[in-house]
Amino acid sequence: MNTAMKELKKVGRELTLLMNTAALLGWDQETLIPEKAIPERAEQLALMEGISHAKLTDPKVGDLLDKLGADEKSSSGNENLSDEDRAYIRVFYRNYHRASCLPSDLVEEMARASSLGQSVWVQARKENDFGKFAPALEKILGLNREAGRLINVGDHPYDSFLDEYEPGMRKAELDVTFGALKEDLKSLVKRIKDAGQVEMGFLKRDYPEELQEKFGNYILKELAYPLDRGRLDVSTHPFTTTLGNHDVRITTRYGEPNPFSSLFSIIHEAGHGLYELGFSDEIAGNILAEGTSLGLHESQSRTWENMIGRSLPFWEKYYPEAQKTYGNALSDISLETFYKGINAVKPSLIRVDADEVTYSLHVILRYELETALFEGTLSVNDLPAAWNAKMEELLGIRPDSDANGVLQDVHWSVGLLGYFPTYALGNLYGAQFMDKAYKDVPDLDDQVRKGNHAVLLEWLRENIHKHGSAFTASELCVNVTGKPLDASYFTQYLNKKYGEVYGL
Amino acid sequence: MNTAMKELKKVGRELTLLMNTAALLGWDQETLIPEKAIPERAEQLALMEGISHAKLTDPKVGDLLDKLGADEKSSSGNENLSDEDRAYIRVFYRNYHRASCLPSDLVEEMARASSLGQSVWVQARKENDFGKFAPALEKILGLNREAGRLINVGDHPYDSFLDEYEPGMRKAELDVTFGALKEDLKSLVKRIKDAGQVEMGFLKRDYPEELQEKFGNYILKELAYPLDRGRLDVSTHPFTTTLGNHDVRITTRYGEPNPFSSLFSIIHEAGHGLYELGFSDEIAGNILAEGTSLGLHESQSRTWENMIGRSLPFWEKYYPEAQKTYGNALSDISLETFYKGINAVKPSLIRVDADEVTYSLHVILRYELETALFEGTLSVNDLPAAWNAKMEELLGIRPDSDANGVLQDVHWSVGLLGYFPTYALGNLYGAQFMDKAYKDVPDLDDQVRKGNHAVLLEWLRENIHKHGSAFTASELCVNVTGKPLDASYFTQYLNKKYGEVYGL
Repeated sequence: MNTAMKELKKVGRELTLLMNTAALLGWDQETLIPEKAIPERAEQLALMEGISHAKLTDPKVGDLLDKLGADEKSSSGNENLSDEDRAYIRVFYRNYHRASCLPSDLVEEMARASSLGQSVWVQARKENDFGKFAPALEKILGLNREAGRLINVGDHPYDSFLDEYEPGMRKAELDVTFGALKEDLKSLVKRIKDAGQVEMGFLKRDYPEELQEKFGNYILKELAYPLDRGRLDVSTHPFTTTLGNHDVRITTRYGEPNPFSSLFSIIHEAGHGLYELGFSDEIAGNILAEGTSLGLHESQSRTWENMIGRSLPFWEKYYPEAQKTYGNALSDISLETFYKGINAVKPSLIRVDADEVTYSLHVILRYELETALFEGTLSVNDLPAAWNAKMEELLGIRPDSDANGVLQDVHWSVGLLGYFPTYALGNLYGAQFMDKAYKDVPDLDDQVRKGNHAVLLEWLRENIHKHGSAFTASELCVNVTGKPLDASYFTQYLNKKYGEVYGL
Repeated sequence: MNTAMKELKKVGRELTLLMNTAALLGWDQETLIPEKAIPERAEQLALMEGISHAKLTDPKVGDLLDKLGADEKSSSGNENLSDEDRAYIRVFYRNYHRASCLPSDLVEEMARASSLGQSVWVQARKENDFGKFAPALEKILGLNREAGRLINVGDHPYDSFLDEYEPGMRKAELDVTFGALKEDLKSLVKRIKDAGQVEMGFLKRDYPEELQEKFGNYILKELAYPLDRGRLDVSTHPFTTTLGNHDVRITTRYGEPNPFSSLFSIIHEAGHGLYELGFSDEIAGNILAEGTSLGLHESQSRTWENMIGRSLPFWEKYYPEAQKTYGNALSDISLETFYKGINAVKPSLIRVDADEVTYSLHVILRYELETALFEGTLSVNDLPAAWNAKMEELLGIRPDSDANGVLQDVHWSVGLLGYFPTYALGNLYGAQFMDKAYKDVPDLDDQVRKGNHAVLLEWLRENIHKHGSAFTASELCVNVTGKPLDASYFTQYLNKKYGEVYGL
């Protein structure tokens, strides 16, 4: 191997090990840490962050990347490198550029603004007072505009942020994709509303937490989540975290109002986890062994959660076990009633509680508002009114308060701009990939009906997981499905599924 | 504060945070890690080790220590420093000197020899073939002799190693202390043997693991172990580890042949943990917030385990609860029979299974043999015969095999020389401190009888814990008890307790 490449990979390996170590600090903090140890844990995490940053932005790394002819086009000029090495350099360069292009005083000011922003947001939400949060948001937007100019990716200043979570994605493309999606979803939501609601009363019955835990663990094993390469634990918010090639841990929470949300969280996080556990041996433990974008990551979790875990074939297999587990709560509920109930669609104010159909509309709302804020075509002071008007336009309901409207999400308060779109992109990628999976495996529903989930997992591994970040999400999409991202796969899937559920 | 002092403390703080982080990696590996993640965990630990070593041996640190007038005598020449700062510099200098005085090729060779030594030892023990292990041990001894010369602490080459675990302790002092202890213990063991054995049959009854767990957790709470600053988990070998000022975790194991060993492990590790949780706020989180020596650490665990946890007043309080927990297994056993049974003395081949009386003889045997090996007055090839002869001399029994004799412990195979003595020193320090505690708190037994363990804990905190490493164990011993270490406190304690148990 090329000496510079070898040296770069040594640094990259250390960065991965540091990231894994920080992930353990974070995982432990969310699951097991003794209460009084939490403040000091922040110091431990900050030190890991500092060591990683110093290692990544070491001038030696810049020299190595120069030697390897790195640029955003993945060392295309360097003929001596393998495709994998080029991909490695592309990802490394991206990380290096993002970490080193901002002056440290700007980075510190952004960190302060985020930290302050979050605490002000908590207070503003509690007091239902957007005015309290507005100056902090104004400040964050200003700093991010400056940072965006320096990061300087894409044609639109918003692209610098979008690209952080969704490498290669641009605002111009999203405008088109989300524009089409929005109209289709609005129309479907309206037809569902006109059809009348399905039976959901059985979800209010008693489903003891220990039975939820038992059933959740049963389903996790059925999905063949490898418990010698991961764990399932409990935390306040469900998440997935990677502590090593063979150590991907997921969490869930019990005791939600909806008794099946613990289960769907397990399936959702297992989807993320199976992606992280599916990288090929060639890239395992190096910098390419990461999900290629947040949108693609979310496609894996949502495919398992919604397209499999909330499908009729899945419950044809597992509903008898659910009835056995929960006894009286489900004994008089038919499979069909159960299936429809767990897929009920109902416009609601809060994104994280939204169903599969309305969820993407919550995301599009945020996307349209944050791009307008970023461009300056919407002022911060006009944001609450714009939010409420858009809720009415997209979902036909109006927030009763800013706390249940514009103040509901933490993201903007900590400077996460360009992040929201990835939630909806997950749905779109998922549907487009699954369309191809059904073409490649025509009896996939039968396999799900038999609990033979290895068939889909194998397909996902071979087509998506094994590559890690070697291809961008757009590249993968074209390579696997033959077409660029197209929202119509998702709307076709929804129209078919919810046409049946609501008899449209 | 002095600028150099401030800079040194910044480095020290980072070293502590790195040590805590490595401790989490280690704790997780022993308790929860998914099986297949273990090999990569070693890489993560090695990276933490490497980063810490580079930080500690940075020439900048040497300059700071020079500026502060550091030497083994704790900057005695520098009049501008507080006592605490002098202690800080003394400990920092010690760590710095040990980390930087050995050339890196010797360090690497020692690491290789230890790694090889351990795997050869595993094989040799399995095959009961000391000859297989002998060359590896010879190599390790040679490298350690060289390292000892370079570390260059004390008058005897063995002192360089002893001092690593027991700062300030010297072979000359140990020879005297252990010499006296040996004769007293031999005599006591003989008298016990002549007295005939106590009733122990009830220990073979059924004590289900879930009840052991329940009772163990109950006792841990009774000892006021703060579970908002620590945890109790399960691992193959019980241990205590410090992950932060407010995060000290202990472990135990269930399912031993002796049904009470899980409990005594909990009490033992809680003793270590309470020490680590008792440092004063002034030193918390800095380099002085560590046990001052392994011997002193062991004194804390053994005091709680043996002098409290195996005492009659303790069981006067808790035996009714034990009877309630275990039902039939203890219903016909009197408190007195129980108390005597859990304190039974019986010479045995294996150190880790030894009782309170014979344990120190196992340690003295290893001490005498390893110093002789180190000096060259005993050759490696003669070691098994010397071991067996000494077992006969000290304990009156002869190993049936090398696997149950000279090959039983891992320590020598990984180059841990000078470590064994600390196990016995723990007993000695413990007894000498407790003699003073009983003088200061004459009704201590009554307090134990009432389950009021805060009284002893408070005494230990005030006299020992709060100081961390600000004083050496010898200094603490003189400061608290008014006298240097004296083995007769321990033998007096044993003579009294076992005189009663065995009616001598």
